[in-house]
Amino acid sequence: MSEELLKQHRDAIDNIDVEILNLLNQRAQHARDIGEIKGGGIIYRPEREAQVLRRVKDLNPGPLPGESVARLFREVMSECLALEKPLSIAYLGPEGTFTQLAALKHFGHAARTVACGSIDEAFRLVESRALDYVVAPVENSTEGAIGRTLDLMVSSPLKICGEVVLRIHHHLLRKEGSMDGIRRVYAHAQALAQCHEWLNKNLPANVERVSVASNAEAARLAAEETDCAAIAGQAAAERYCLLKLAENIEDEPNNTTRFLVLGNQDVGPTGQDKTSIIVAAPNRPGAVHYLLEPLAANGVSMTKFESRPSRAGLWDYVFFIDMEGHAQDAHLVQALAGLRERTAFVKVLGAYPQAVL
Amino acid sequence: MSEELLKQHRDAIDNIDVEILNLLNQRAQHARDIGEIKGGGIIYRPEREAQVLRRVKDLNPGPLPGESVARLFREVMSECLALEKPLSIAYLGPEGTFTQLAALKHFGHAARTVACGSIDEAFRLVESRALDYVVAPVENSTEGAIGRTLDLMVSSPLKICGEVVLRIHHHLLRKEGSMDGIRRVYAHAQALAQCHEWLNKNLPANVERVSVASNAEAARLAAEETDCAAIAGQAAAERYCLLKLAENIEDEPNNTTRFLVLGNQDVGPTGQDKTSIIVAAPNRPGAVHYLLEPLAANGVSMTKFESRPSRAGLWDYVFFIDMEGHAQDAHLVQALAGLRERTAFVKVLGAYPQAVL
Repeated sequence: MSEELLKQHRDAIDNIDVEILNLLNQRAQHARDIGEIKGGGIIYRPEREAQVLRRVKDLNPGPLPGESVARLFREVMSECLALEKPLSIAYLGPEGTFTQLAALKHFGHAARTVACGSIDEAFRLVESRALDYVVAPVENSTEGAIGRTLDLMVSSPLKICGEVVLRIHHHLLRKEGSMDGIRRVYAHAQALAQCHEWLNKNLPANVERVSVASNAEAARLAAEETDCAAIAGQAAAERYCLLKLAENIEDEPNNTTRFLVLGNQDVGPTGQDKTSIIVAAPNRPGAVHYLLEPLAANGVSMTKFESRPSRAGLWDYVFFIDMEGHAQDAHLVQALAGLRERTAFVKVLGAYPQAVL
Repeated sequence: MSEELLKQHRDAIDNIDVEILNLLNQRAQHARDIGEIKGGGIIYRPEREAQVLRRVKDLNPGPLPGESVARLFREVMSECLALEKPLSIAYLGPEGTFTQLAALKHFGHAARTVACGSIDEAFRLVESRALDYVVAPVENSTEGAIGRTLDLMVSSPLKICGEVVLRIHHHLLRKEGSMDGIRRVYAHAQALAQCHEWLNKNLPANVERVSVASNAEAARLAAEETDCAAIAGQAAAERYCLLKLAENIEDEPNNTTRFLVLGNQDVGPTGQDKTSIIVAAPNRPGAVHYLLEPLAANGVSMTKFESRPSRAGLWDYVFFIDMEGHAQDAHLVQALAGLRERTAFVKVLGAYPQAVL
């Protein structure tokens, strides 16, 4: 009876698979035709991919979760692209970090991720077109290099063509399955800060908190020293075969890290976009307020505003500004024109679709 | 005109995507129903997955290559399985090795791969059911541990439930883009042997050949020493940001590595299967010939026959034998019965589908 029922479901799946198979090939043929119409031009179109992913998430009837169908369509587009040539993606190694995860999340597994020794090298390989895109963390990361990413964007000719947001969970990891006898906890300073309350509540006061270069490094150390623990994510736990003493110990439950995708191309509008710019300002009272006036006047909302001391010497500060909307949208065009009247240095880093997955 | 044509193709893709989306969800619902009928039993069925993959490859009309559609259906099944609970897969680390590639190729990216410090630990974690399956190299690998894998199978209760075959390409890798001034080439001894002719022809006789623990280790060394090169694969080249001085330098173009998937389950027949056994024999003239007689008599073809000195002490040698067919097939049942009459030690390691992807 239940055997008969099983067979019915399996037959149904077999029929569905044939339909999916044929549709996938029709899709690939259309993608190939599009490639031919473009005649060897750039075939990866971030704006188009973002639209496809948003659409399947919107239309998804379940039971597969929206994340699952988006992941699958990401892979489908990745395979269709690879019919022509697989994309190569540079990132700051080592492997198994959140940055590599972000790269694969954005480009799918038919893309090739290339771990580089430094973020500078990753940028250089894409600027010279040895590789196609670079993925770099820009906000709230526990993997370092954020400051360096921002500095590189000041001078690099690369354009931002996408963003990736990863929800980051921290776990307390150790070689042994008990909290007894922990003498020391390793983690990136950022992660120690993000788990501060939890550590106060759950660990004895005499346990040392040692900040190291990255959470991956912390996990590596904890794998070697049995009286130590580490704060790190799932990937590091798996990589170093550590046990989870406690999961999701971050004080703030919506802990995310944001990554940017940079390449040699401009991206068209999708209706849900961001535009990132750098502007310079002198260190003078009221300078920032004066500078931002055109944004307010044109109804542009900022999603990020961050100052950094300028390394170029000409200016005191540079500001990294993320705005909602695409640089081609009318109100942004006017706001940018207004900005250019107020400071000699305005650089549009890129306009790109907001993160979908 | 070409804009109009582009739009037509994109609209067609949009329509196809909705159809695929609905079919994927119908498929997931059937998979979930099957899970319920089974009532919490084992949901991963290697025999069923092998049949699904063979079928879509057989029916594939193109233009997507058979490998691509098999990869996509692997991911679809991986996501459908993960609706219940993602599979966890142990392997001998570090990450970025061919073994991890093999694990992801076999289980899809919704599975979690766990790098372990030793092959013994990987087996132990699956025996204790902390993890679901282990993937281990058994033939022609450049990652070591093959002997240890065979020894572990003698005593482990785990069953073989699948095999993965990877085509292995070796490249000559270096930090700099030229052959000039190479003083030393690092590689696993196996890889040095496999590229022997090429090295003789293309490198000066005074270049040292140094064998190290793995090709990944060789790449790591070459990344540090500028007057050295390494022989390793794509993954190691990417991981250590090395340039390819020469591609596919293996003397034998069909260079493959074979991996086994082991777990706590028996796998049913699919029509294209293998059965692996271990038998013991005394070191006596004619002993092997006598032992194999039941296989020949029942028309069983062997795809592998390998002897190893026994570590148990009771026997002089143990033999690892792979046979075509499933242990439940009539001629294998008879052959195995015949074997058991001739030696006290016959262990069926598993019967499993031949590699598809």
